[in-house]
Amino acid sequence: MKAQRNRFLLDESDTPTHWYNILADVDVQESDVRRLRPLGESEEHRSNGVALNLPLSMYRGSVGRERFVEIPDEVREQYQRWRPTPLVRAHRLEQALDTPAHIYYKYEGANASGSHKLNTAVAQAYFYRKAGVQELSTGSGAGQWGTALSMACQMYGLGLTVFMVRVSHDQKPYRRVLMELHGARVLASPSATTEAGKELLAKQPDSHGSLAIANAEALEYARTVPSGRFAVGSGENHVLLHQTVIGEEALLQMERAGEFPDVVIGAMGAGSNFAGLAFPFHRERLREGVHTRLVAVEPEACPKMTRGRYAWDYNDLSGSTPMTKMYTLGHTFAAPGVHAGGLRYHGAAPLVSALYDRGLLEAVSYGQKAVFEAGALFARTEHVIPAPESAHAIRCAIDEAVKARAERRPAVILLNVSGHGLLDLSAYQQFLAGDLEDHPVSDEQIAASLAALPDQAPLGAS
Amino acid sequence: MKAQRNRFLLDESDTPTHWYNILADVDVQESDVRRLRPLGESEEHRSNGVALNLPLSMYRGSVGRERFVEIPDEVREQYQRWRPTPLVRAHRLEQALDTPAHIYYKYEGANASGSHKLNTAVAQAYFYRKAGVQELSTGSGAGQWGTALSMACQMYGLGLTVFMVRVSHDQKPYRRVLMELHGARVLASPSATTEAGKELLAKQPDSHGSLAIANAEALEYARTVPSGRFAVGSGENHVLLHQTVIGEEALLQMERAGEFPDVVIGAMGAGSNFAGLAFPFHRERLREGVHTRLVAVEPEACPKMTRGRYAWDYNDLSGSTPMTKMYTLGHTFAAPGVHAGGLRYHGAAPLVSALYDRGLLEAVSYGQKAVFEAGALFARTEHVIPAPESAHAIRCAIDEAVKARAERRPAVILLNVSGHGLLDLSAYQQFLAGDLEDHPVSDEQIAASLAALPDQAPLGAS
Repeated sequence: MKAQRNRFLLDESDTPTHWYNILADVDVQESDVRRLRPLGESEEHRSNGVALNLPLSMYRGSVGRERFVEIPDEVREQYQRWRPTPLVRAHRLEQALDTPAHIYYKYEGANASGSHKLNTAVAQAYFYRKAGVQELSTGSGAGQWGTALSMACQMYGLGLTVFMVRVSHDQKPYRRVLMELHGARVLASPSATTEAGKELLAKQPDSHGSLAIANAEALEYARTVPSGRFAVGSGENHVLLHQTVIGEEALLQMERAGEFPDVVIGAMGAGSNFAGLAFPFHRERLREGVHTRLVAVEPEACPKMTRGRYAWDYNDLSGSTPMTKMYTLGHTFAAPGVHAGGLRYHGAAPLVSALYDRGLLEAVSYGQKAVFEAGALFARTEHVIPAPESAHAIRCAIDEAVKARAERRPAVILLNVSGHGLLDLSAYQQFLAGDLEDHPVSDEQIAASLAALPDQAPLGAS
Repeated sequence: MKAQRNRFLLDESDTPTHWYNILADVDVQESDVRRLRPLGESEEHRSNGVALNLPLSMYRGSVGRERFVEIPDEVREQYQRWRPTPLVRAHRLEQALDTPAHIYYKYEGANASGSHKLNTAVAQAYFYRKAGVQELSTGSGAGQWGTALSMACQMYGLGLTVFMVRVSHDQKPYRRVLMELHGARVLASPSATTEAGKELLAKQPDSHGSLAIANAEALEYARTVPSGRFAVGSGENHVLLHQTVIGEEALLQMERAGEFPDVVIGAMGAGSNFAGLAFPFHRERLREGVHTRLVAVEPEACPKMTRGRYAWDYNDLSGSTPMTKMYTLGHTFAAPGVHAGGLRYHGAAPLVSALYDRGLLEAVSYGQKAVFEAGALFARTEHVIPAPESAHAIRCAIDEAVKARAERRPAVILLNVSGHGLLDLSAYQQFLAGDLEDHPVSDEQIAASLAALPDQAPLGAS
C-alpha cells in the first residue's frame, strides 16, 4: 500500500513577502471601495474621526493600485510563527463521497487564536504601534476577532480593551479566558465604563447586549483614551489585503500538488477569509485559459449577497460610522441567531461587493442543518472539527464534489477551512441531539430592512 | 531585522518508519516490565483474560529485544495525516525569562484529538482490527484517550464504547461531543449496561462515578461482546513503544536545528508522553560523550516517583488486573482532584519505573499553582494554550532555564508539549481568578496507601 500525499507543507522561508492588492486588477472606482479614512479625511464623521482613523502606513497599501504591498519584516517574522499554514488533500472526504473530484483545503485553524483573524490582527497591531497608538479597543460577539487581536496586541506591547456582548461574556466564558490569558481587558457590554453603556443600563439593567452596542462602546472608549483607536477585524480593504497571504500560499501549494483549482470556495461573513483565499486566484484568471470560479458561501439566515442589494449603507445599527457601497440587507437587518456568529453581519466587504457586482464571483447560501451535516462529515473523515463558519465552505465543496460525481467529470476544488470548532462544541452537541433548526429569512423581513437603507449616497460618491 | 528560525518542520516522508524498543538498550528482566499478556498466557486472571489480551502482532514488538520495530504501512499512512509534528524554538519564552538557555518544544497538540494519545490509538486500532477484533471498549475520565481512540476506531472501522465517569459526562460535555462526532458510543458510568454498573446504581443511584468504576464497566463490557477488547491508553509497553515516534522525530529536528539537548523533559502520568520523547534520547546516551538528562515531571498531588515505592502492585482499585512491578503510591491511593486529570494515576509505567530504579531518569514534582503560572506564561509568550498536563513539563523547563541564567551557562532544553488546553479553559479561568489551590499529599496518606500494597509478587516474578 503506497501512502498518499496528504499535506502540502511549505518552509518558513516560503511565507509570502507581499500582500496582494486586488485593486490593481479590477476595474472599480476608488471611491466605491474605500471606507475608513486616514487622518484628516474623516469629514463626514468628525466625532468618530480620530478613533476610526487608520495609520497612513497601513491605509496606503489598501487603496492604491500597486499590485503587491510589501509585508514589513516585523510582521512577516510574526507570521512565520504559524505560517505557512498547511494545504491538505481531503482524501477521506473524497472517498466518503465516492467522487472523482480532488478536494483540497487550506487550514487556518492551527494557530492559537484558532482562526484566520490573526493574519490581520498582527498586521494591524504592528501598524498602530508604529503610528504611536498605545491602546486598541474593539467589540466582540463570538470572540474569534477579539482572541486574535489580544494575541497580536501582546506581541507588540499594545493595550487592548474588548467590549464583549454580555450574553456571550456570561454564557461562553472560554473565549474571554483566552483573551485575558493574552493580557486583554474584557468588559461585559453594556458596561458602566462608557456613556453609551451607562445610558442603556439605566433603561435596561438586565440587557443581554448586542454587537452593535459593544461596538458603540468600543468606539466611544477609543475616543476617550489617549492614543486610542478602534480596530476592526473584517470588511475593510486593509483587512482583506492582509488576508491574501492565505491565497498566495495556496497558489504555491497547489503548484506543488501539480493541480490548479476549478473552483475556490470560502465562507462569507463580511468577506475576509473568502477574499484572503480567493483574490490571488482572481489574479491568476487574468492569464490565458484560466477560468477558476470563486464562490462565497453565506448562511441563509443572512443572505446579503444572494438576496441583498448593492447600495450605500451604514456599517452599524446606529449609523455613526461612514457609509459604504456594498451588498447589504440594510443596517437594521437583524440576522437570526445561527451558530455561525461570524457570518451574521448585514453587509459584504466593498471589494467583494464590487467584484460580485461585476459578475466575477458567485454566491450561494445554506441553512445551518445542512451546514452542520457537512461539518460533522468533515470531522468524521478528515478529523478536523471545523468552525461553524468554515462548515459553510465545506457544505459547498461537498455539493461541488457530488455534482462532479453525477456528471462523471474530474474537478479540483479548493476551500478555506478558516478556523477550528473546538470552542463551538455546544453547537455540534445540538446537532447530534437533532435540536438544530434552520432560520430562513422571509422576503418581508428583507424588504423591510432594505426599505430602511439611507436614501442618498455620501457626498462625492459615484 | 533578521527573522529567527522558529519551527523545524519535517516533510511527510520523514515520518519515522520504526518505533524504538528501549528493551534493547536497558538491562532489565523481561518479567519485570511486561504487564498485559498475549492470548493464552493470562493464567492468573483468567476471567479477564480474553478481554485484556493483546493481539500477538502488537505484543511481540513490545517485549522482545529488537531495537527497532517496523511501523506497518497502514499505520504510518495514518500518522502522515498529522506527523511529523513541529519542533518549535521558544524564542519569546526565552526572552521573557532573559535566559541564555535555548528552549525547544515538541508540539503534539495540533491533531484533532488534541494530544499525543492519537499515536498509540491509531496503532492499537490497526492491530486489533487486523486480529479480527470488532469492537473496543475503554474507560475515560478527562477524555483525551477516549477522543483519540474514537478517531482511530473510525479510521479502521472498529466499534467503540466509552464508559465516561458520570460527573465528567454531565459537567464537561465537550469531550463527549468530540467522541460522538467520531462515531463512538459514550455511556455515563455507572451505567445500566453492565452488572458492575447496575450493582453500584442499586446502592448509589446518584453516584458520580470514578475512573476505577468506568474501567471495570469497560472491562466487563469487553468480555460480553463478541470479539471485544478493552484498550488502554498509557503505561503498557506497547503504548510507550508507539509514542517513540515523538522522540525519533525530535532527534532529527534537533539535528536540523544544529543542537543537542542537555535535558529532555516530559509530564508524567503513567509515562507515555514522557517516554515517547525521552526514550530515543536514552539510546543516544549510549554514544560516547552524550550525557543528556531525562526528567519526568509529576504533580505534587500524585508523586508516584518522587515519593512512591518500586514494588509489585495492581493497576486498578479492585485488583482485578494483573500485577505490575512499578513505582507506585499503592492502588488504593486517591489523588486529590487537580486539573491535570491525566497525571492522577497511582503508578508509573513498568519501563519508566525500571529506568528510574537504575538511576537513568530524574523526577520532580510541582503544585498546580506553579504549573498554571508556567502554562499562562507559555500562552502569553508562545501563543499556545498548553494542557494542564503539559504545563507540568513547561514549569520544569522554565526552572531549568532560570537556573542556567543564574549560573550564567548555556543550556539546551527540550520538552514535550503533549496537548492543547482549549478544552481546559475553565481551569485557566480559575487560575486567572486566583481560585486555584495546591493539593500537597501528607506523608500519612502515602504511608497508608503503601501499606495496602499486595504482600507478595506474582508467581514467577523476580
